[in-house]
Amino acid sequence: MITIDQAVKRLLDNDDILIITHKSPDGDTLGCAFSLYLALCSFNKNVRVECSDAIPTKFNFLQKHYQEKDFTPKFVVAVDVAAVQLLGKKLSEYADKIDLCIDHHPSNDMYAKETFVDKNASAACEIMFEVIFKMGITITKEMADCLYTGIATDSGCFKFSNTTAKTHRIAAELFELGCDYEVINRNLFENKSKKSIQIEQKALDAIEYFFNDQVAIIEITQKMVEETGANETELDGISSIPRTIDGVEIGITMREQNDGSHKISIRTACKVDASKLCAVFGGGGHKRAAGCLIKQDYETTKAQLLEAIKSLIEE
Amino acid sequence: MITIDQAVKRLLDNDDILIITHKSPDGDTLGCAFSLYLALCSFNKNVRVECSDAIPTKFNFLQKHYQEKDFTPKFVVAVDVAAVQLLGKKLSEYADKIDLCIDHHPSNDMYAKETFVDKNASAACEIMFEVIFKMGITITKEMADCLYTGIATDSGCFKFSNTTAKTHRIAAELFELGCDYEVINRNLFENKSKKSIQIEQKALDAIEYFFNDQVAIIEITQKMVEETGANETELDGISSIPRTIDGVEIGITMREQNDGSHKISIRTACKVDASKLCAVFGGGGHKRAAGCLIKQDYETTKAQLLEAIKSLIEE
Repeated sequence: MITIDQAVKRLLDNDDILIITHKSPDGDTLGCAFSLYLALCSFNKNVRVECSDAIPTKFNFLQKHYQEKDFTPKFVVAVDVAAVQLLGKKLSEYADKIDLCIDHHPSNDMYAKETFVDKNASAACEIMFEVIFKMGITITKEMADCLYTGIATDSGCFKFSNTTAKTHRIAAELFELGCDYEVINRNLFENKSKKSIQIEQKALDAIEYFFNDQVAIIEITQKMVEETGANETELDGISSIPRTIDGVEIGITMREQNDGSHKISIRTACKVDASKLCAVFGGGGHKRAAGCLIKQDYETTKAQLLEAIKSLIEE
Repeated sequence: MITIDQAVKRLLDNDDILIITHKSPDGDTLGCAFSLYLALCSFNKNVRVECSDAIPTKFNFLQKHYQEKDFTPKFVVAVDVAAVQLLGKKLSEYADKIDLCIDHHPSNDMYAKETFVDKNASAACEIMFEVIFKMGITITKEMADCLYTGIATDSGCFKFSNTTAKTHRIAAELFELGCDYEVINRNLFENKSKKSIQIEQKALDAIEYFFNDQVAIIEITQKMVEETGANETELDGISSIPRTIDGVEIGITMREQNDGSHKISIRTACKVDASKLCAVFGGGGHKRAAGCLIKQDYETTKAQLLEAIKSLIEE
């Protein structure tokens, strides 16, 4: 692993830089990409941001000052990408060509030529704040908006256990740099569509409890998705619900896929490591939030999950 | 109004101090009361905390180190209490005997003999942090827990528009003082009972939209409360739902009371001042969150509210 100063030097020493994000982009990977884009542009470098998937409309404000440039990349930076599989299909061609990776996932498997990981950072944007600060340029309001978006996204607006004193201090700096926290927070956390209210209604109807209510499972079927017309982003919000119920240690959302398999999202309270549980099924993530894909029908998937949970709950 | 230094001096110069909170106590008024209690106890003073209503069990951790003492108060301090009516029935005897008030509500009507209000503070606990700091004592982990609880409660965990750079800096200090933010945040924000999940289900079914979906109203009937067995705290969570829907400028929750009247809770996005709207009906509060009581049936109350809203929405 390199130091943050070395990471900054690599960025300043290179040009024709391609910044790549993980697939199903969230506020952290996008906040990193567009703040770094703005910072590098201020050095008159050629910079481009690429993502395998479309950017959700709620993050459009991050690319307000983005101008697409066509050039052959000489330096590739991955931001907030823990493993090459997370680049997605479109960006898979870069899998073995990544010069630098800046990330905060403890599970980062060091796929890049050089890597800076700070696993104590609540968000990759917390690291990016320091990277840009160390470039010696003025952090603009636009960069602050991007950085705040990433931090608010990954810390659950300072609610999750990954939040630290440093997270709050950086937030204070970003406030003073004029970031639109009010608008960003509304965009991120208080902007449910009517459709997501509808899917939430159906999800609440479908909750099942196990192990003396320590485990709560919600299944989101294809039928529920069709009936409400809810999209990916609208479905995402459901994942946090089961764990928020009093006494629930493990909250699970199982989303039925087109092919009948199930995309599993797991959130845990304090005893169980979600990433370990998901690792049993070839998935991964963080201690309190992780995911995996199980190519089975609902009942089989549920039985397998409950079997894997049994030993963890009893530990 | 007195200065914060004068407020600190009054507290240090007096003994046999009664600290009083507002009725239906929340994390801010209780966090203020119990942090101040601990601070004053460290000067070996006689201190007692009183509240008209029972303290919700989720705030029990705030009074872990509290020991009830019987004495005749010589000095009465109200914390986070904007008006004497908010003291509640049990404490109404103190209405004209309050020596000092420490508060952050812009609507504070200066009922106390001396008052320190900082309307820029996200929470009264933000002020209390400074008050205790200025006493020159060590802020203990227990005080930090109380103070963080108040700040997290009133800033919606740093999400609401009242959050400032200072709020984040104080949070950073409290983290370093060892506050149990993870447990507190779970207690405050991720601890829904099964009953509150049930009442939420019913509330989502009952949403009505007006003025091109700019206004969303939820009625919580006595029947819904009876069917779910939800208590006050469980019902409180509903108030924030309607405003979180995309495009909704004014979110209203109308809770039917035993006598058929309606307790109104109003949350607004950015155009409408909630406290002004509630003032029309004799209520009050903050710009983005306010309340009032309307002694009418549902349809009449709704019609009156929509009439009052009409001019505001069209402004």
